[in-house]
Amino acid sequence: MARNIPAFLGCNAEYSSAGLILFGVPFDGTTSFRPGARFGPGAIRQESVGVETYSPYIERDLTDCAIFDGGDIEVPAGSAERMIALTKERAGQIIRDGKRFVMLGGEHLASLGALQAAVMHYPDLHVIQLDAHADLRDVYQGEKLSHATVMRRVWELVGDGRIHQFGIRSGERSEFAFAQKHTRMQKFNLEGFQENVRELKNKPIYFTLDLDVLDPSVLPGTGTPEAGGIAFHELLAAVLQLHRLNVVACDVMELSPHYDHSGASTIAACKIVREILLQMGSYPSSALQ
Amino acid sequence: MARNIPAFLGCNAEYSSAGLILFGVPFDGTTSFRPGARFGPGAIRQESVGVETYSPYIERDLTDCAIFDGGDIEVPAGSAERMIALTKERAGQIIRDGKRFVMLGGEHLASLGALQAAVMHYPDLHVIQLDAHADLRDVYQGEKLSHATVMRRVWELVGDGRIHQFGIRSGERSEFAFAQKHTRMQKFNLEGFQENVRELKNKPIYFTLDLDVLDPSVLPGTGTPEAGGIAFHELLAAVLQLHRLNVVACDVMELSPHYDHSGASTIAACKIVREILLQMGSYPSSALQ
Amino acid sequence: MARNIPAFLGCNAEYSSAGLILFGVPFDGTTSFRPGARFGPGAIRQESVGVETYSPYIERDLTDCAIFDGGDIEVPAGSAERMIALTKERAGQIIRDGKRFVMLGGEHLASLGALQAAVMHYPDLHVIQLDAHADLRDVYQGEKLSHATVMRRVWELVGDGRIHQFGIRSGERSEFAFAQKHTRMQKFNLEGFQENVRELKNKPIYFTLDLDVLDPSVLPGTGTPEAGGIAFHELLAAVLQLHRLNVVACDVMELSPHYDHSGASTIAACKIVREILLQMGSYPSSALQ
Amino acid sequence: MARNIPAFLGCNAEYSSAGLILFGVPFDGTTSFRPGARFGPGAIRQESVGVETYSPYIERDLTDCAIFDGGDIEVPAGSAERMIALTKERAGQIIRDGKRFVMLGGEHLASLGALQAAVMHYPDLHVIQLDAHADLRDVYQGEKLSHATVMRRVWELVGDGRIHQFGIRSGERSEFAFAQKHTRMQKFNLEGFQENVRELKNKPIYFTLDLDVLDPSVLPGTGTPEAGGIAFHELLAAVLQLHRLNVVACDVMELSPHYDHSGASTIAACKIVREILLQMGSYPSSALQ
Amino acid sequence: MARNIPAFLGCNAEYSSAGLILFGVPFDGTTSFRPGARFGPGAIRQESVGVETYSPYIERDLTDCAIFDGGDIEVPAGSAERMIALTKERAGQIIRDGKRFVMLGGEHLASLGALQAAVMHYPDLHVIQLDAHADLRDVYQGEKLSHATVMRRVWELVGDGRIHQFGIRSGERSEFAFAQKHTRMQKFNLEGFQENVRELKNKPIYFTLDLDVLDPSVLPGTGTPEAGGIAFHELLAAVLQLHRLNVVACDVMELSPHYDHSGASTIAACKIVREILLQMGSYPSSALQ
Amino acid sequence: MARNIPAFLGCNAEYSSAGLILFGVPFDGTTSFRPGARFGPGAIRQESVGVETYSPYIERDLTDCAIFDGGDIEVPAGSAERMIALTKERAGQIIRDGKRFVMLGGEHLASLGALQAAVMHYPDLHVIQLDAHADLRDVYQGEKLSHATVMRRVWELVGDGRIHQFGIRSGERSEFAFAQKHTRMQKFNLEGFQENVRELKNKPIYFTLDLDVLDPSVLPGTGTPEAGGIAFHELLAAVLQLHRLNVVACDVMELSPHYDHSGASTIAACKIVREILLQMGSYPSSALQ
Repeated sequence: MARNIPAFLGCNAEYSSAGLILFGVPFDGTTSFRPGARFGPGAIRQESVGVETYSPYIERDLTDCAIFDGGDIEVPAGSAERMIALTKERAGQIIRDGKRFVMLGGEHLASLGALQAAVMHYPDLHVIQLDAHADLRDVYQGEKLSHATVMRRVWELVGDGRIHQFGIRSGERSEFAFAQKHTRMQKFNLEGFQENVRELKNKPIYFTLDLDVLDPSVLPGTGTPEAGGIAFHELLAAVLQLHRLNVVACDVMELSPHYDHSGASTIAACKIVREILLQMGSYPSSALQ
Repeated sequence: MARNIPAFLGCNAEYSSAGLILFGVPFDGTTSFRPGARFGPGAIRQESVGVETYSPYIERDLTDCAIFDGGDIEVPAGSAERMIALTKERAGQIIRDGKRFVMLGGEHLASLGALQAAVMHYPDLHVIQLDAHADLRDVYQGEKLSHATVMRRVWELVGDGRIHQFGIRSGERSEFAFAQKHTRMQKFNLEGFQENVRELKNKPIYFTLDLDVLDPSVLPGTGTPEAGGIAFHELLAAVLQLHRLNVVACDVMELSPHYDHSGASTIAACKIVREILLQMGSYPSSALQ
Repeated sequence: MARNIPAFLGCNAEYSSAGLILFGVPFDGTTSFRPGARFGPGAIRQESVGVETYSPYIERDLTDCAIFDGGDIEVPAGSAERMIALTKERAGQIIRDGKRFVMLGGEHLASLGALQAAVMHYPDLHVIQLDAHADLRDVYQGEKLSHATVMRRVWELVGDGRIHQFGIRSGERSEFAFAQKHTRMQKFNLEGFQENVRELKNKPIYFTLDLDVLDPSVLPGTGTPEAGGIAFHELLAAVLQLHRLNVVACDVMELSPHYDHSGASTIAACKIVREILLQMGSYPSSALQ
Repeated sequence: MARNIPAFLGCNAEYSSAGLILFGVPFDGTTSFRPGARFGPGAIRQESVGVETYSPYIERDLTDCAIFDGGDIEVPAGSAERMIALTKERAGQIIRDGKRFVMLGGEHLASLGALQAAVMHYPDLHVIQLDAHADLRDVYQGEKLSHATVMRRVWELVGDGRIHQFGIRSGERSEFAFAQKHTRMQKFNLEGFQENVRELKNKPIYFTLDLDVLDPSVLPGTGTPEAGGIAFHELLAAVLQLHRLNVVACDVMELSPHYDHSGASTIAACKIVREILLQMGSYPSSALQ
Repeated sequence: MARNIPAFLGCNAEYSSAGLILFGVPFDGTTSFRPGARFGPGAIRQESVGVETYSPYIERDLTDCAIFDGGDIEVPAGSAERMIALTKERAGQIIRDGKRFVMLGGEHLASLGALQAAVMHYPDLHVIQLDAHADLRDVYQGEKLSHATVMRRVWELVGDGRIHQFGIRSGERSEFAFAQKHTRMQKFNLEGFQENVRELKNKPIYFTLDLDVLDPSVLPGTGTPEAGGIAFHELLAAVLQLHRLNVVACDVMELSPHYDHSGASTIAACKIVREILLQMGSYPSSALQ
Repeated sequence: MARNIPAFLGCNAEYSSAGLILFGVPFDGTTSFRPGARFGPGAIRQESVGVETYSPYIERDLTDCAIFDGGDIEVPAGSAERMIALTKERAGQIIRDGKRFVMLGGEHLASLGALQAAVMHYPDLHVIQLDAHADLRDVYQGEKLSHATVMRRVWELVGDGRIHQFGIRSGERSEFAFAQKHTRMQKFNLEGFQENVRELKNKPIYFTLDLDVLDPSVLPGTGTPEAGGIAFHELLAAVLQLHRLNVVACDVMELSPHYDHSGASTIAACKIVREILLQMGSYPSSALQ
């Protein structure tokens, strides 16, 4: 008798045969406003039955890709350091096995572990970040490791001009000053995203999506909702560009599902994850009509 | 002493003198994701006091029309067949009495009963469907009668080219293939709606509105919320065209109010119902300044 | 890389080596008041990490038993007949394999499928039912198969004096009249439960627990909450008697988790499931200090 | 075609033939903590389908009584004076017509209007109050008319020794001092209720039930929840005594349904209303087996 | 030991040194649909830690302004007259002290008290109102003082042509007729706002913002949500014009936070309040880079 | 103009003149199941207006005591070590100033900081713990500092026989084994509490109350709800004994208010805090009639 406990929609391949791996990092230990992103990966997986495997946007179907959903890695609630190390380990293994991944958060700090692994393998890695928040503080609440400092730590890994930020509409003054010198930041919206894609098309890309880039009307279920965000169709339009890039890894972070009892936030996240997987998946020629 | 239990806002005419009839079908027995549309008609009726009888959009007032709210028909929770038969019976009686109706759902499958009655009376009926989902499966979960198959069953009644679908953004691959051959489908949005109205202006029309065509930010209270929908003002603009058509019957389906504790979904539905009633109502000349 | 998607807490044995099987039936198609029991099995499984594997009540640990969690069987939303057949098939297979099971609902009607299988194997089966509702109608809303008729259908299987009902505090007049002739019913509470256990100790027992026997203050997350129920510790005391019986199968029904946003209903259900599993499990001698 | 918008469960008699009248007062204008009791009567009426017409506690059925549900009276949101006058008018009419009533609140201040009418007709009226709060302030927030002063105003109508208070567990010091001189107060619980019933059995009684006498675990949906209340079965036991009294009027106040998304508060209120109606109803001899 | 109970984000100046004063009026006594705006000021203050003090829109920081948050004035739940008098007194004192203020509601009627004070000091005051509702009834539910009549009362203070209404999409027919003669009304949206700003730039302005002008998808937490409202960025664009005007006083009304459990409504309100404070604040030259 | 932002109900004394100090520790960084206890202190303070200052249980009034509410200490979200140090510092200062305190959590781990300070001053300190969980693990999720290890760390401070545990109904096997040797544990309920009070009456006592000792029906708003807890009146009865002891410090932990949208959990916590303050306060002789 098989165990019928569902993975993310349509991600039923074995690890060995899959080119694309999904896994979750249920951690929110440094979240400063509203915790609960730890429940994000489980909710996305559980509610994914609420969307279809087929995308009418690009006429592709998840069932045509070979994707393995590895479930969640086990991380301690109270230690950012160990969470980062465990995330790095998992990400590194997947990369070394020649595969790509989509990581589900969890708070944005988990991206640091994944990026540490990715940078080791792809030294010329560029990072595209869609986010409401700059995440560029050096220290937050006295800590170097925080959801509010994560892109500063990433900058220490990749250096100037390698972080491409879009949709940023919150931060303290010093973060915007830092960005002016060290990152490429598009405030408030996704203008220039398409040009950015053209420019980066030969680079290995890590795409990090903090779901709070969306307007809270679309996704209230997140830790630090920030009014004035982008619409779902704007995010979708950006995601539908990803196949033009060499996206070696991706993450979808900061869904905090308990803050949206309607479930609409989780469903929106599920749909975005589906579209990202479809952008990153490989298709047998039979599936491409 | 009169019984002061409110009908839908301003719908206080007697059946005999009313040209327009409102009734509800509190059924959600085949809903596959999140049930609760059975509570839709009651919630719309109860919360309708939260909107005005007057529409500043068209400068008409519900109190000028003669509308009868018949309340809900009684349907069993577990039998789709009997629900459809009872709905057909009610719809048929209204049509035979020379009246038009607005039906409140309940799941979309109830439209099949109403359409069976309408097609008998109006053999050249066209159906305009606003919906997130194609609802064109032949069989779903092994069943022919389902919210996911309802437009396929309707197609069996009306034939090719008679179903005009707008806003469709979800379905399996085969549904979109079917639509290409048998229906007229505008994916994702309402483009072409106005042209469609012009084209159909001499036909009897059944207008079926699955409220999930709206973006879940506007209407999270529905059974299968699907991110990426249309804005309220887009739906409103379409509804405000209806007086140009010969709409003989209409339905407003799939409000599942318990999934939106803010009540905003129900209020949005109430306002749309008001505007539809105002489009379909007849006015004494004294009301038309 | 293993797939880390959790089964119910501590139920990680393989089917072949397990003596006790857990599975879910996510169906609520005949629920007449508030649907949503379909989400019960998934919620119990997902939230089970919120309780410990160890019971201080009986000083036993789930990790000492060999239990297989098979996940959910796949049932159509709209067909009670097929749901019952599929449930019967699964239950029958487990019984034929010489194992016992705990089924998670889902609405109470699913118990009929499981009981059909159990009665075939254990013709002298007795049924102990803890429930707020008698469930003894012959027909409900015109249907023979309903959550409100399920024990009447079970009575047709097992006959007079074989159904032992406790905690019943709701029904129509005729149900209570029927019970007086055909079942053994303790209204309102669990008085006499212990005597009942003594009396039945040599019989094969199917224990069916409708969680709404609990007071809605303890378990608001259910389809037809009925004020005036039993306390958690009263239910626990009854469950802790089960090892004195030859319980061949059991079910835990009618958790409708979306109606309790606090999650307390689900946690209560998880704890009861743990205690039932611990009552029904076999322990290696090393675990019995 | 009849209008199928349901009254309270089983209360379908005409006014003229009914001996018992139900009506609601949707007002909460002086509520100082959490408003929303205005939604109480509508919610009780709408959700009453969730309980049965038959009471297994006393083996009587609502369908055997002739009860008229008049719906709600229309009161302005902002004027306590006018709400009281309108309530007095409705209550007076019912009493003059030789009928008894159950009023659904709304905030407790509405009882003042009903009591003004009742005292005019029954000068020797006694009042039994079940409540968490003494409601005996002379002035509250500078106002004489308030949910917190209502029983003080009632005392001015009926005088010393006529108000019998049970379950009181909150108030300011001066209220308890006042009670010691002027009312009969049982703090915290219902001890002595049965003796009280015996003592009052020949008097006309107004029974006023502030639902917050229940513990907030049973009824969180109320304006000023106060921990440490009575259990449902304690309230039920008291209500089941009412037929021993000459209850000429009754009210059930302070359900604020939006504060309990589980709906369990409303269901508990519905069941209590059913049992009160059954206590106050008259039965044809054929219904008394 | 200092008392660390937070004021609104960054509003930590003393009254004497502050040029800009924040205070709340927790009143909703005439709210006719869904009460709860009384909780607005407290929620805005408490949740303001969820936004930053720095605005990337205008590159200003709240910590550079001297703002005093006086907390809430104490108003009785049941008396509109006294609430208005107390509000007028507080507003008058601030104006007489040569300061400006931002008032947090509470229901819109509180604006009347503030406007009575403002008009006394600024006889040529103009009022800019952003609102879903016209609020121009003469009498509502028999009362002259109501959230639905407040702008009619204000018109009695300021006269024809002085009230500039934007975004109005609800009212009864007579209100729109009144507006045509006596106010300047832009229905449905903010078209013409910029021209209006130019025209009024030399006048003293009272800016009254009923948050329900926003679409309910953005702000479901309000008393009378009205579908079809403006987007957050449209409101923000208008607010960012305020520094071009001589805004002597402002209010932000009708947040009813309990109706949005996601908290997104409150966060949106906090951000708007921040931007308004930044528009109205004075900056030391050192803060203006 | 004074700043009217309320402290906890009736706690308006200055620090210097107060004998009893209230402060909060908004930290939940190691919470393993459901975070959110960080919002506990703010919610208790904000909602305390919902209870009275007067206790009818002991006929004392908070307004007669001199209590200072210092608000919350500022702690980083992600560092348990620093949170403990900051808590120890605040607690130490209060004790050195000759005062006693009630600390509001936050997660239970904060008690460790407070106890480190208390033990330094009172080397013969005894600890009374009311809790659902033993909290006696040595290491949890690889961490020594955790809500699940806090009493083990406390035991390292105070040694054998000094920790008196009541109500414990959850833990792993090893915790119960540890308790048998090193603490005094009453499982499941508060039996023996009164004897314990008698025995400890001459000792300095730290009373630590994890609110999850209450049944989740009473307090669903907590991080790890555990079915089968004690009733509110049982907890109240224990608290009403505290004046018989020399309680030098106390804490009330683990309210996670966002998990109970009804607010009943917070209100229950407020009432318990009031009663504890009244037990620990000193009264002028004029207040003792």
